[in-house]
Amino acid sequence: MDVGIAVPGSVPAPTSDDPVRFPAACPTRVVLSHVTSRWGVLVLLALGDGPVRWGELRRTIEGISEKMLASTLRTLEHDGIVHREVFPSVPPRVDYSLTESGRELAARLVPLMDWIVENADAIVDRH
Amino acid sequence: MDVGIAVPGSVPAPTSDDPVRFPAACPTRVVLSHVTSRWGVLVLLALGDGPVRWGELRRTIEGISEKMLASTLRTLEHDGIVHREVFPSVPPRVDYSLTESGRELAARLVPLMDWIVENADAIVDRH
Repeated sequence: MDVGIAVPGSVPAPTSDDPVRFPAACPTRVVLSHVTSRWGVLVLLALGDGPVRWGELRRTIEGISEKMLASTLRTLEHDGIVHREVFPSVPPRVDYSLTESGRELAARLVPLMDWIVENADAIVDRH
Repeated sequence: MDVGIAVPGSVPAPTSDDPVRFPAACPTRVVLSHVTSRWGVLVLLALGDGPVRWGELRRTIEGISEKMLASTLRTLEHDGIVHREVFPSVPPRVDYSLTESGRELAARLVPLMDWIVENADAIVDRH
């Protein structure tokens, strides 16, 4: 299983003198931190079935603050993963959805979440 | 695509009156936070090819402090995901490896990391 995340062309391949496989300055580290931020995975999964309104996201993801939801959505929107659409109703309605890129990413999260769902009870019982 | 993470039997299914899909007290939230902690994913990937010594992990994952590496490994060890083995040499040698459960989990991370590697440069260029 090759799980190296060096990006061809941008990061030199590790040698025996240079065993850094996950360089701090690598773009993959930045994107990984966005996707796996405290709330990033849950927001992506919550958007998996189609557009969701702001208030619905807040209720769906129990415990997320307005500030953290706003910050997580803003980061993912800048990343081109989440699309934000404002409808000029009174009061204005704001919908969030996955972009095509976001849908690809969310699909990769499903096998991970399936594993976590299958194993979470047993893992928590160990503590 | 059904990405709901409610655990059958432990969490009531959401209804229109109760739209919480990701309850704060759900074991899946605890395990998700361990796996996707700031360093969790990188530690799991670094262990993907077999046992690794403490010092090698520190050098491989650039920027991780001794304290954070110790804390991440301890959490994953308690979760039954990482195995710690001490060899009685002088100085003592400590190896970390994935358990069978950890190997299953790491395999689920590979498609996610592949996507991140493919897309990270384009995403970072947007900022």
